Amino acid sequence: MKFSSKVQKCGLSPMRKFHPYAVAARAAGKKIYHLNIGQPDIPTPEACFDAVRNFNYPVLEYAPSPGIPELIDAVRGYYDKIGISLTEGDVLVTTGGSEALQIVCNCILDDGDEIIIPEPFYPNYNTFVCTTGGTIRPLTTTPEEGYFYADRRRIEALINERTRAIMITNPGNPTGVVLSPEEMRMIVDVAKEHNLFLISDEVYREFVYGGEKLASMASFADAADNVVIIDSVSKRFSACGARIGVIISKNAELMAHAMKYCQARLAVATLDQVAAAALYTLPADYFTDVREEYKRRRDTVMAGLAKIPGVVCKCPKGAFYVMAKLPVDNTDSFQQWLLTDFADRGETVMFSPAESFYGTPGRGVDEIRIAYVLKEQDLSRAMELLGKGIAAYNAR
Amino acid sequence: MKFSSKVQKCGLSPMRKFHPYAVAARAAGKKIYHLNIGQPDIPTPEACFDAVRNFNYPVLEYAPSPGIPELIDAVRGYYDKIGISLTEGDVLVTTGGSEALQIVCNCILDDGDEIIIPEPFYPNYNTFVCTTGGTIRPLTTTPEEGYFYADRRRIEALINERTRAIMITNPGNPTGVVLSPEEMRMIVDVAKEHNLFLISDEVYREFVYGGEKLASMASFADAADNVVIIDSVSKRFSACGARIGVIISKNAELMAHAMKYCQARLAVATLDQVAAAALYTLPADYFTDVREEYKRRRDTVMAGLAKIPGVVCKCPKGAFYVMAKLPVDNTDSFQQWLLTDFADRGETVMFSPAESFYGTPGRGVDEIRIAYVLKEQDLSRAMELLGKGIAAYNAR
Repeated sequence: MKFSSKVQKCGLSPMRKFHPYAVAARAAGKKIYHLNIGQPDIPTPEACFDAVRNFNYPVLEYAPSPGIPELIDAVRGYYDKIGISLTEGDVLVTTGGSEALQIVCNCILDDGDEIIIPEPFYPNYNTFVCTTGGTIRPLTTTPEEGYFYADRRRIEALINERTRAIMITNPGNPTGVVLSPEEMRMIVDVAKEHNLFLISDEVYREFVYGGEKLASMASFADAADNVVIIDSVSKRFSACGARIGVIISKNAELMAHAMKYCQARLAVATLDQVAAAALYTLPADYFTDVREEYKRRRDTVMAGLAKIPGVVCKCPKGAFYVMAKLPVDNTDSFQQWLLTDFADRGETVMFSPAESFYGTPGRGVDEIRIAYVLKEQDLSRAMELLGKGIAAYNAR
Repeated sequence: MKFSSKVQKCGLSPMRKFHPYAVAARAAGKKIYHLNIGQPDIPTPEACFDAVRNFNYPVLEYAPSPGIPELIDAVRGYYDKIGISLTEGDVLVTTGGSEALQIVCNCILDDGDEIIIPEPFYPNYNTFVCTTGGTIRPLTTTPEEGYFYADRRRIEALINERTRAIMITNPGNPTGVVLSPEEMRMIVDVAKEHNLFLISDEVYREFVYGGEKLASMASFADAADNVVIIDSVSKRFSACGARIGVIISKNAELMAHAMKYCQARLAVATLDQVAAAALYTLPADYFTDVREEYKRRRDTVMAGLAKIPGVVCKCPKGAFYVMAKLPVDNTDSFQQWLLTDFADRGETVMFSPAESFYGTPGRGVDEIRIAYVLKEQDLSRAMELLGKGIAAYNAR
C-alpha cells in the first residue's frame, strides 16, 4: 500500500530518540531535571476544575462547530481588556492552538506555496506546513544577535510569487524574543504591502518580563484582512491538557474556509470549552503572580548560564524558554551522553537540542532550548549540572 | 490573498441553509421535531461525569500523544471481549472519530488518488478526502435495493491504478445497512487482492437490531495490513461532546505515519480521555437497554413511514438512521417549505435532505435521512407530520 508523499516528508518528534535513554537512566536510579518540555508546573486555576464539576446536563452533547457561545464571549471579553474589539464571527474555537495552526495552514497553503518563518521555530510548524504540500522559507537568526528577526530587508528578501504568509510566534518559542510595537508595525506593513497573511501565534502573550503592555497583531485595524491570531489556554492558564485554542481573524473569507474544517470535525470537546470559558473570565491580576514567578525563573537560568564558560545567550524578554549556544560539538550527542555517561551525585539534566528548531540544514547543532518550567532551586541545580556536564563532556 | 485550492473545493455544511428558516419558524411559535441530527438523547452514563469529577491533579497536563495508557488499555479490553486482541501500538487515541478519519485520509491519499465509498455516505467524508487532494469514487446504491453495496463485481469495477482504499461505515450512516459476515469477508478479500486499505468506520457497532454478533473488520487476521478501524465513544456511550475516538490498525507503517500527526497536535484532551476510559470499562449489558430502546424507535419510524403512500424504504438493520425516498420532487425544497409554509397544530418536522449524502450529482434529490434520536411518541408524531406535509406539499 502507498502512503501520502506529504506525510512521508514529515518526521516523528526528534525528542523521541532520547526517551529510551531517559527511561534507562531513571531505571538506573538517576534523577533527571526536565528542561526539555513546555509543560508548566504552575497549578491550573481551580475555576477550571470547578466549571467541569458543576456541569450538570444529562447528555454530553456536541458543542456548536464554531465553539460554545459562553467561551466565544469570554474570549471577546479578554481581548476587549487589551483594547481589541472582536465580533462573534471573528473567533473560532479549536482543539488547542495546534488545530488552529493546522486549519489556518490548510486554508492558505497549496502544493509549492511558501510561508516565511523566523528560525529557530516551534518544530511542529514543520508538520503543519509540510502536510499541506507547502514549504517553510526560514528567516535565519543567530544566538549572537539574540535571535533578532524584525529586519524589513531580510524579510523582504525571502518574498517571492509563491509566498502566502509570514508566521511568527510573539513572544517567541523557542527564542523568547518579544517584538517592540515598532517592529510589530513594520511586519504588519510588509504583510500588507506584499498582500500576505500574517499569522501571529500569541499563546505566550502574558509572559513578558520588562513591563511591556500586552500586545497583539490584532490591534492593527488597517491590516484586519491580513492578520490571523493563534491563541490558546494551554500556557496562559497552565491548562495544556484542556486542548482549547482559537483562530481569530477579521478576514471573513478565511473564516468561512476555516469553518469548513470546523464543521467537518463537528465540534471541540464540550467540557473543556466550559472550563476554558471559566479561565478566560479570571480577573487580570491572576497573571501578576504567574508572571513574577516565571521572571524569577528566567533570571535564575540566566544567572546559571552566565557562570558557564563559552555559552552564548542574550537574556530573552518573554515566553518561558531560553535558547543558548553551548561550547560543545553537537548538543544532540551531548544530550545522549548526559543520559548515558554522566551523573553528578546521581543527577543529570535534559534540554531540547536545537537542530530540530531550524529549517536550514546544519543550523542549531551547538544550541539548546531550556524550558524554565521548574522551581527556582531545581533550575539552579539544573544549570549547575549543565555546567559540570559541559566540562566533563569536553574533557573526555 | 490566495486560499488553498483544496479548501476552495470543499463546501460548508448543506444543513446550514435551513438554520435561519428553523429559527424563524421557532420565533413564530412553531414546534419542530428534529430528526435531522445524529445527537442521541440517551443520558450519558454517570461513570463519565464521575471520572471527570474525581480527577484530582493540580495541573491539567498534556496527555501522551498516542493517548493515556488507561484509555488505551480500556479500548483493548473492550475489543478483547469481541474476540480481537490488540497491542498497545495498535491503538491511537484521537479527538473524535473525526480526527481519526482526517489523519488516516491524510496518511494515505495524495493529489489525484481515489477512495471508493458506497453512496449515500456521511457528508463529512467529502471534506476529509477533498482536503487531502484525493477524490471519492462513489459506489452508487439505491433505495429500491435497500442501499445494498456488498457486490464484488460493482466494487471491482471502480478500482483503478489511483485507488488507495475502500471506506465503509458498518453499520451504515445514513443507510443503516449492516454487512453479513460473508459480505465482510468478501470486501476484505477485495482489499487484499488489490492491495488497498480498508477503512472501516464502526462507530455504530453496537446498534444492530437483528441479534447479530458484534462485528469488526479487525477480526480478519489475514488482512491485518489492510484494515484500519475508526471508532468513537460518541454514539456508543451517548458522549458526542467528549470528542474521543481511536484509530486501530496493525499496519505498523500506517501507525508510524499517523503518529506524526498525533505528535504535531501534541495530545487529545486529558479529562475526556479519563472519562472515556471509564465508559469503555462499563459492563457489556449497558448496551442491552440502549439497543432495545433504539430498536423500538426504528420500528416506530418504519410503522409511520409504512402509512405514507409512495414512500420507498426497506427496514434498516443498524445504526440509528432510516433513509427513505419520498414522493416529492425535491426534498430540499420540501424541507424549506415545511419550515416556512406548513404547520399542523403548530408543529412541523426537520430531517436531512439526502442530496449531500451522495457523491454523484443529481442523486438523492427525492430522498431523506431520518435520525431516530427522539422518544417513540415524538417519533410517531413526527412521522404523522411528515405524511401530512407530503400530502399538503403535493396538493399546493
